[in-house]
Amino acid sequence: MKARVEIMLKTGVLDPQGEAVRHALGALGFDGVGGVRQGKVIELELPDGTTEATVADMCEKLLANTVIESYRIEMA
Amino acid sequence: MKARVEIMLKTGVLDPQGEAVRHALGALGFDGVGGVRQGKVIELELPDGTTEATVADMCEKLLANTVIESYRIEMA
Repeated sequence: MKARVEIMLKTGVLDPQGEAVRHALGALGFDGVGGVRQGKVIELELPDGTTEATVADMCEKLLANTVIESYRIEMA
Repeated sequence: MKARVEIMLKTGVLDPQGEAVRHALGALGFDGVGGVRQGKVIELELPDGTTEATVADMCEKLLANTVIESYRIEMA
């Protein structure tokens, strides 16, 4: 089975990478681009029967820095 | 309006970051984790009326390295 984890910086946390993208888009002529936020997506191939709780455990322990990042899990 | 772009390495392109995550998960006791692929997600705040074609143009010119990465756009 597969799981998909999306990790984004929490609202209010400065996102310099997103800000750099926003600036570069402006320089390329894409006007009016407002906020840009950049995050990570991780696709995991897991043993059948793995629960969402296990994936949440992976996020808490390794995948996300929960001080500044939030995560969202999709099981498929 | 908002757009969401998901950028993943193409199939067959080595993903050392994903491999490192897979290895680390094993070391933390999460057994049986198969492939792990890591990608990027970019959320853009765009002027109303921006078309998906414009966002695709942003991907081709800046956001994705189309030699090794594929991208998927969601307009919202």
